[in-house]
Amino acid sequence: MAEPDRERWSLVRQAIEDTGLDALVCCLAENIVLLSGYYSVTGASMAIFPRVGEPVLIAPRFEREFVDRGWIGDVREYDTWQNRYELPPAHLLRLARTVAEERGLRGGRIGIEGRFETIAPNGLSGEPTGLGVPGQALIGEAFACEPIDATELLYELRARKTAREIERLEIASEVASLGLIAFKEHAQPGNREVDVSAAVESAVRVGGPGYRGARHAFAWAQVTSGPATAGNWNYPLSSARRLERGDLVVIELGVVVDGYWSDLTRTVCAGTANQQKRDLFALVREAHAASTGAVRAGATGVEVDAAGRSLIAATGLGDAFVHQTGHGIGFRYHEPIPFVAPHSSHTLEAGHVHSIEPGVYIPGVGGCRIEDICVVETARGRLISHAEFDLA
Amino acid sequence: MAEPDRERWSLVRQAIEDTGLDALVCCLAENIVLLSGYYSVTGASMAIFPRVGEPVLIAPRFEREFVDRGWIGDVREYDTWQNRYELPPAHLLRLARTVAEERGLRGGRIGIEGRFETIAPNGLSGEPTGLGVPGQALIGEAFACEPIDATELLYELRARKTAREIERLEIASEVASLGLIAFKEHAQPGNREVDVSAAVESAVRVGGPGYRGARHAFAWAQVTSGPATAGNWNYPLSSARRLERGDLVVIELGVVVDGYWSDLTRTVCAGTANQQKRDLFALVREAHAASTGAVRAGATGVEVDAAGRSLIAATGLGDAFVHQTGHGIGFRYHEPIPFVAPHSSHTLEAGHVHSIEPGVYIPGVGGCRIEDICVVETARGRLISHAEFDLA
Repeated sequence: MAEPDRERWSLVRQAIEDTGLDALVCCLAENIVLLSGYYSVTGASMAIFPRVGEPVLIAPRFEREFVDRGWIGDVREYDTWQNRYELPPAHLLRLARTVAEERGLRGGRIGIEGRFETIAPNGLSGEPTGLGVPGQALIGEAFACEPIDATELLYELRARKTAREIERLEIASEVASLGLIAFKEHAQPGNREVDVSAAVESAVRVGGPGYRGARHAFAWAQVTSGPATAGNWNYPLSSARRLERGDLVVIELGVVVDGYWSDLTRTVCAGTANQQKRDLFALVREAHAASTGAVRAGATGVEVDAAGRSLIAATGLGDAFVHQTGHGIGFRYHEPIPFVAPHSSHTLEAGHVHSIEPGVYIPGVGGCRIEDICVVETARGRLISHAEFDLA
Repeated sequence: MAEPDRERWSLVRQAIEDTGLDALVCCLAENIVLLSGYYSVTGASMAIFPRVGEPVLIAPRFEREFVDRGWIGDVREYDTWQNRYELPPAHLLRLARTVAEERGLRGGRIGIEGRFETIAPNGLSGEPTGLGVPGQALIGEAFACEPIDATELLYELRARKTAREIERLEIASEVASLGLIAFKEHAQPGNREVDVSAAVESAVRVGGPGYRGARHAFAWAQVTSGPATAGNWNYPLSSARRLERGDLVVIELGVVVDGYWSDLTRTVCAGTANQQKRDLFALVREAHAASTGAVRAGATGVEVDAAGRSLIAATGLGDAFVHQTGHGIGFRYHEPIPFVAPHSSHTLEAGHVHSIEPGVYIPGVGGCRIEDICVVETARGRLISHAEFDLA
């Protein structure tokens, strides 16, 4: 078992006290990472964090390797999925009820992940687990209570990262950067978008495990090329289109390493870029640098957005920068806090982690976006992704 | 737009009538595929299938390419995620309410995906969307009703595939078979488990798009090697372990092609297998053939399981075949119907699609499993995966 992240645990305990809960009970892989550092493989686990006393983890016995990478010592294991054992919900109910009785939590104020609908998948991301009506009923029965929605509490907690969490996010962004290097190498005329995606995902899959202690890495690369890059802000899936000489090529890359996420974007040109594309790239890079330069604790999401957006607007392309400058990241690909955009209500705090991703999209010409991950520090923003390269 | 799958639509309409619903409303990518053939990228869509009249689809405008691959003609598009537009829930509420008013569905009996907690991800599988309390409240408000849980109806509908759906599942299993060929090639001494996984996933990613009209393919490969294969029934994640000469190597491979799933397993030996491992492999292959040979409409899940299991039990290894022989598959990696196991209550029907996956796991020696996808026909079971190879 790893040494607990005491900074995180005291923040969680404080939030539980502040909201008058008796315990926080989480089933989603992303929140179990938050509370315990354990990234569930199958999503069949539960973390119980009481206001008083040590937290408890319920997990399938066969995930012990992953449980041991986390820092909850009181683990209640169960056997499942073999013919002779019951399925996970029966065990979760039985074991959670036992914990509730031991800790005097029956009939208490139990906070749950009430409004998480878009979620980060578990390690087995082909079959993620959400919290729906059955899971909420299970918690209600085990704790003999009407569960309380603790979604805001969780998002607030997730927004301010601890020192250890920032280190994990650095690892994730460094692993993701390996994918960007593969992107630069494979984004050549004649290759298909899906070929480039596969090379990037493969670079992360093989480069991640073992990197600074990482165990598991997974990547989702979306590569768009040519005129379609003008619509790249909307998550297009890589297609079988072959890159042509002179095409803009954009990659949107989501990476998870042991439950901690990165989200990077690069734009290159397949072959030689014309002047218009070079100007576009230079403008986006300037906006990226300006917004990054505006980051510090106390700056508002509006100010950081405006620092880059104003440069783009000054060229008459303001309407072509259609989206936000940045979003939070950490326990998921996209976190709601902080939001860095013209209509943001957030003020940056030390420990916030967010993307910086200005983009300009011109129908008929193409789109260009550059995205890095930035840690908010007292006096500056610090980028933790490391793969800078020119357009061509 | 594609020609509707009339067979599927009449089955859906019949089920809606039989259960006394006024409409079925689905938000999960996997059920939108069932109703419309459209595989959502971002999970921000809704399909409304009324008892009377044509179905309606609500989807983000930027997913039109994918919407057009499906077969719902009445599509209500919306713009989102740019700075000037609202987020998806506001549009879904507004447009669903409009449809409810047009079709006289307000206050009606509206069936929803009430108990789906483990779900298939959408195309952007790094951030899947579930249906939780907010989504259920949204449907309740749009249709002015208390939604009715239609989970059983959906699982029953999903169990019996139409001719077109079987063709799509054949494509998925053929694409997945490309991954198995890469597995056989890369499962060599000296390669790490994660290297083999990456090669398999890459083969699917590059081989899928364009294959028999496929647009999008994604793969999750889990490779286990050496003594750890004895625990392979429990979804271990590929590790950085290097394959050693004489190791058993098992791959568990989940693949989705445009929303239709495959699930295949192969066992090989890195280098030369000793007699004990060859015997183990031969036994599992015999059990696989025996269970496959027992498949036909009217056979029970217990009978098909017993056909293979009895051969394993006869060698004294009955306790080492710890799991079921098969599970349903189609709109997700694992479907509940039909279950092929000692304690199954299901009888196979023509159009059922399930795995055949006997496995034997011997601590200290290793494990062996062979898994294919089988379509139940009137008089036989037909395998739709095509990559058979020997242990070494």
